Amino acid sequence: MPRTEISALGEFGLIKHLTEKVKIKNRSTVKGIGDDAAVLSYNDKLVLLTSDLLLEGVHFDLMYVPLKHLGYKAAIVNFSDIYAMNGQPKQIIVSLGVSKRFSVEDLEQIYDGILLACENYGVDLVGGDTSASLTGLTLSISCVGEGESGRITYRNGARENDLICVSGDLGAAYMGLQLLEREKLVFEGNEQAQPHFDGYEYILERQLKPEARRDIVEQLREKNIIPTAMMDISDGLSSELLHICTQSKTGCRIYEDKIPVSFQAAAMAEEMNMNIVTAALNGGEDYELVFTASLEDYEKLVQMENISIVGHITKPESGCYLVGRDGGEIELQAQGWNSLR
Amino acid sequence: MPRTEISALGEFGLIKHLTEKVKIKNRSTVKGIGDDAAVLSYNDKLVLLTSDLLLEGVHFDLMYVPLKHLGYKAAIVNFSDIYAMNGQPKQIIVSLGVSKRFSVEDLEQIYDGILLACENYGVDLVGGDTSASLTGLTLSISCVGEGESGRITYRNGARENDLICVSGDLGAAYMGLQLLEREKLVFEGNEQAQPHFDGYEYILERQLKPEARRDIVEQLREKNIIPTAMMDISDGLSSELLHICTQSKTGCRIYEDKIPVSFQAAAMAEEMNMNIVTAALNGGEDYELVFTASLEDYEKLVQMENISIVGHITKPESGCYLVGRDGGEIELQAQGWNSLR
Repeated sequence: MPRTEISALGEFGLIKHLTEKVKIKNRSTVKGIGDDAAVLSYNDKLVLLTSDLLLEGVHFDLMYVPLKHLGYKAAIVNFSDIYAMNGQPKQIIVSLGVSKRFSVEDLEQIYDGILLACENYGVDLVGGDTSASLTGLTLSISCVGEGESGRITYRNGARENDLICVSGDLGAAYMGLQLLEREKLVFEGNEQAQPHFDGYEYILERQLKPEARRDIVEQLREKNIIPTAMMDISDGLSSELLHICTQSKTGCRIYEDKIPVSFQAAAMAEEMNMNIVTAALNGGEDYELVFTASLEDYEKLVQMENISIVGHITKPESGCYLVGRDGGEIELQAQGWNSLR
Repeated sequence: MPRTEISALGEFGLIKHLTEKVKIKNRSTVKGIGDDAAVLSYNDKLVLLTSDLLLEGVHFDLMYVPLKHLGYKAAIVNFSDIYAMNGQPKQIIVSLGVSKRFSVEDLEQIYDGILLACENYGVDLVGGDTSASLTGLTLSISCVGEGESGRITYRNGARENDLICVSGDLGAAYMGLQLLEREKLVFEGNEQAQPHFDGYEYILERQLKPEARRDIVEQLREKNIIPTAMMDISDGLSSELLHICTQSKTGCRIYEDKIPVSFQAAAMAEEMNMNIVTAALNGGEDYELVFTASLEDYEKLVQMENISIVGHITKPESGCYLVGRDGGEIELQAQGWNSLR
């Protein structure tokens, strides 16, 4: 692959080069890249705003994360936050900090990933800048979405007896990370070693190329269900449920045998002598949605695709517990994925 | 000063601690910190969106930038982009990446600066997260503002014969940086040395604690002037004017003897054997506004406070030139402040 030094294009040339493929998709995008700020139009809609900062060595390891996947995931993480509000992501702004070891082609890969995610989810890239970094790669993305008054889902609306629902399956992204870390250690010991990924494509994809659950938000609309509370699962189900229960002033019970896990994640946990339920509860980065809904919606919920009812909301004094297969109760902990520890 | 390790609070505890003083000021802020995304309401208004990423060692040097000032400036830089669209900043989201050498008290200082800027400019902090960094300090701020249809100022609206106006004075932030760099070298040679800043308070403040020109945007409204194009001066007047002329498909003439410079900046340039006009044109970080306006607005413009008319827009084939005191013409260059070189 050719290598073009970033300095050959300069700051303005670079951003022009990286964004020349951008086409505007949303009517709400009045003015995209190329001014001091993007201009958006949201008459009658509520505006949702979120932001994520990804730092090399903390949030990603370029030894096994391809740059295109990194760009894709960085965008998805933001879309997921907007879906978690029961909204639709519409615009993103991207800021990159890059050190000298990156070429223009490297940045093209990152942008290719970001633009693919934008394409898949109908989002406009409306701003971007790139600056030098003295050390690693820094990726900051902010996302604006739209929501409707009365349909926005906060964290504080869960009520006693509400059902707790989870989309997809949990723990696979975490088990994928464990596999990548294991193979990295093998590689560092013997650079001739080839990684062993056969049969684990699903958990690798969950880690490297996650998707956001637009389909769930669409199903909720079609079935006319408004969750009482909703979050995306970035830090692990335990951590997110504790946020919902704290802000809603409730307790909860979830059931070990209801937690959805994939075959591959369970097999990898077995191979590594880990507990798959622990991975599902505390692993994080699944970008599934957890939401609470009224008991009245039960019939509709069981008809939804890719949804598991995993428990229910209780009085606050009952605390937050996982009920094991043996009936024993284990208190939920906010171990989560905490980069500050 | 006490030193509290960040790990003592944890990620969620930290952000709660840093943001507990936040009070919502704007009706458009429906929901601030504490959910997956902030919720904003902008009926009938256009939404402006901008973002800035500040990296230690590239955009700031903590040897002479106090953390509170850094937070203040990081917020101001974003507000300035919104004013440059003739809009009003309303909400910001802050993401911090911090390495182990920073304590909770350090982050409090940064937030104190950000919150002071928010207080002074009537902006709500509506989201924030903090994560670990393996190296230096990373500060990413995104800002949402509101604008009115028909009053938003883009870069591409300048027309032949329009007047070119600049707020405040230019080059002071750059000369302040030169002074700080000089005193840093002295200090590194002799740690007992005390810096010599007497008489240069203004240029230091311009570098360390810049303000955004809300007053200019307010005056434009009061006098019912809608600039044909506007930008904030972050990379230097030459660079910004070239952006306006390129996007507007025009040329321009500005006059050396009209460029506003402060006494202190000129004195420092003299002391350092530098050309103050070069500093004014290419120095950057002044966060003043440059705008073009119709000749019909001339009478109103001369009545505006803190505004200098520095030149006019020409046909594109006339190019972009500075007319010297001697009548000679020098082509404008986009040297600017380019972190990628």
